[in-house]
Amino acid sequence: MITTDICLIGAGPVGLFAVFEAGLLKMRCHLIDALPQVGGQLSEIYPQKPIYDIPGYPAINAQVLVDNLMEQIAPFNPGFTLGERVEMVDRQSDGSYIVTTNEGTAVHCQVLVIAGGLGCFEPRKPDIINLERFEGKGVAYMVKNPEQLRDRRVVLAGGGDSALDWTVFLADIASEVTLVHRSDTFRGAPDSAEKVFSLASQGRVNLVLQSTITSINGNGHLQEVNITAKDKTVTTLAADHLIPLFGLTPKLGPIAEWGLTIDKSAIHVNTTDYSTNIERIYAIGDINTYPGKLKLILCGFHEAALMCQSAFRYVYPDQKLSFKYTTVNGIPTF
Amino acid sequence: MITTDICLIGAGPVGLFAVFEAGLLKMRCHLIDALPQVGGQLSEIYPQKPIYDIPGYPAINAQVLVDNLMEQIAPFNPGFTLGERVEMVDRQSDGSYIVTTNEGTAVHCQVLVIAGGLGCFEPRKPDIINLERFEGKGVAYMVKNPEQLRDRRVVLAGGGDSALDWTVFLADIASEVTLVHRSDTFRGAPDSAEKVFSLASQGRVNLVLQSTITSINGNGHLQEVNITAKDKTVTTLAADHLIPLFGLTPKLGPIAEWGLTIDKSAIHVNTTDYSTNIERIYAIGDINTYPGKLKLILCGFHEAALMCQSAFRYVYPDQKLSFKYTTVNGIPTF
Ligand SMILES: Cc1cc2nc3c(=O)[nH]c(=O)nc-3n(C[C@H](O)[C@H](O)[C@H](O)COP(=O)(O)OP(=O)(O)OC[C@H]3O[C@@H](n4cnc5c(N)ncnc54)[C@H](O)[C@@H]3O)c2cc1C
Ligand SMILES: Cc1cc2nc3c(=O)[nH]c(=O)nc-3n(C[C@H](O)[C@H](O)[C@H](O)COP(=O)(O)OP(=O)(O)OC[C@H]3O[C@@H](n4cnc5c(N)ncnc54)[C@H](O)[C@@H]3O)c2cc1C
Repeated sequence: MITTDICLIGAGPVGLFAVFEAGLLKMRCHLIDALPQVGGQLSEIYPQKPIYDIPGYPAINAQVLVDNLMEQIAPFNPGFTLGERVEMVDRQSDGSYIVTTNEGTAVHCQVLVIAGGLGCFEPRKPDIINLERFEGKGVAYMVKNPEQLRDRRVVLAGGGDSALDWTVFLADIASEVTLVHRSDTFRGAPDSAEKVFSLASQGRVNLVLQSTITSINGNGHLQEVNITAKDKTVTTLAADHLIPLFGLTPKLGPIAEWGLTIDKSAIHVNTTDYSTNIERIYAIGDINTYPGKLKLILCGFHEAALMCQSAFRYVYPDQKLSFKYTTVNGIPTF
Repeated sequence: MITTDICLIGAGPVGLFAVFEAGLLKMRCHLIDALPQVGGQLSEIYPQKPIYDIPGYPAINAQVLVDNLMEQIAPFNPGFTLGERVEMVDRQSDGSYIVTTNEGTAVHCQVLVIAGGLGCFEPRKPDIINLERFEGKGVAYMVKNPEQLRDRRVVLAGGGDSALDWTVFLADIASEVTLVHRSDTFRGAPDSAEKVFSLASQGRVNLVLQSTITSINGNGHLQEVNITAKDKTVTTLAADHLIPLFGLTPKLGPIAEWGLTIDKSAIHVNTTDYSTNIERIYAIGDINTYPGKLKLILCGFHEAALMCQSAFRYVYPDQKLSFKYTTVNGIPTF
């Protein structure tokens, strides 16, 4: 069991910055995110786009902002559990919480902060016969650890950046890489598409265009992938792994079932400290709502700061909080 | 008369960022600040100190943050009136306001936003006989336009950074520069003190240490400065200008008399949009208060964003506001 002061659900920009504000008050944090990387929407949806409304940055690339936030919180040494979804929250008799993920990871914390953005990013699942039967048995919707694919036969499906990038990346790792795509042009970045075409011409990846995967089969574990071309011909491919990459859509998911006051898919909070209707549970960033709410990164930063001032009483019930400027006092480390 | 959509009292970091948020909604701004430079407390009190809690900057020098904010708002072409204090606010029959400074500058605006920080920075006045009689007649507490001192005999008083920096700067401009200081060591940066000592040894400035100015005289305009040394000897110096630089202290000043709800020297606001009790007047940054308020730069940024969404209705009463991401829509210019 992981033990921490504050458990943050969501490692988007707002969850990350909350670690900094908590650290200033000497509170430790552990973050859990369903995605395999930190950064939330910024890293998942628009990593290469410039953002213009981060105060003090006339323009900043979304991924650079995430990297800077990681550097800013590094002195406070946060813990991370990535690629796991928080499913359950259990209140203990002393008021603390135990948070449990879909993979059984448990975190004991004094304060729970939901920084879940638009919700948990869930993969868009294509319509393939037997797909769900082989989930975890060869079928996965994201690559958490590429090493598990070393020397295996991998089939990827999709036409966006993730499909292209992973095809290029896995060409060096897997024994066989096949990319199946319904069109013969790609939505992803032109230079990534070019790399894939070039790898295909060198015979290092198989490119199956104008085709869709219609069904899969296996005996306990995935063994074959059936591909139907536009002209209706069906090909069967032997494969150990299938990774459909058709993007992710956020869903509030389990958070909706914890008794929190929900208003239009967002958690209702008090603007004094961004607390929810349940004691010791706060909600900050895109996932909360209150009169005047704007789903902006800079607003989540403010919410994180006020939340920490309030959470302090649960972590250090006997101490009086004193507010200090970083410019005057520097930052503590631990 | 200057005409604008939003008049901002205060060009500190929060007033500056408000220009950006207003610009995104196509609202023009004019800023008035009593200081001769923008940046508020950052530029006036701690320009060279690193700030650690600006989100996305593991550390940023206060003046660099101000410079970056100026770059970020440049596309929106704000107007500035610097070195003037707002004294009066008059509501017009159509609901708009006319704001007037101590020097008679008038700004007509649809919305008034008070981003006045801890209040107007007022100079600390030393105890010198006849000092106030010669204000504006040779005595000034800040240097607004150094050119006005060209080829004049200038006496500076003080031992901090401003006194040292202006002594160095004016050595090249004034015909005669004298720095009077009560001690023989300086509180300001050691390298600035060194520069002053070196200029003194070259005979380019007069350094009168262990002494204080006790009285001044003149016929309509300042003519002589009387300096008393520790050993009680009194010297009289002919001078055209006296600039006592003993720091600035913020005072709420005229703002306290406009009928706003004031709570512990701060303006009470509603957290939905940071509006005050008076229609079309908002207060953001250090000058406002509400439950949970933190006097942090990052909080003022959030307040600026929400305020602009609300102010829009007064500037564009017939338009519906649509909320857009900068990443998706870029930034308009005008
Ligand atoms: C195309 C686009 C452009 C944008 N442009 C701008 C812009 O210019 N300026 C701006 O300020 N904002 C912009 N935004 C909005 C901005 O991205 C969000 O405001 C910001 O990401 C919110 O941060 P967050 O940390 O609250 O949530 P998110 O970034 O959404 O992160 C939340 C994280 O929580 C995780 N999570 C949720 N539920 C669970 C669970 N049960 N278990 C585990 N993990 C969970 C999710 O996987 C996710 O990673 C834009 C958004 C998009 C989509
Ligand atoms: C030593 C020190 C260290 C700090 N460290 C940090 C830190 O690490 N992090 C952090 O977030 N914050 C820090 N702060 C606080 C931070 O500086 C303030 O939160 C910030 O300056 C507030 O910005 P503002 O724009 O609201 O007001 P200000 O910066 O105070 O600017 C207000 C401006 O309004 C002007 N004004 C007021 N009344 C009038 C009038 N009637 N007419 C004309 N002009 C007027 C003033 O001259 C002033 O320039 C620190 C402050 C100090 C003093």
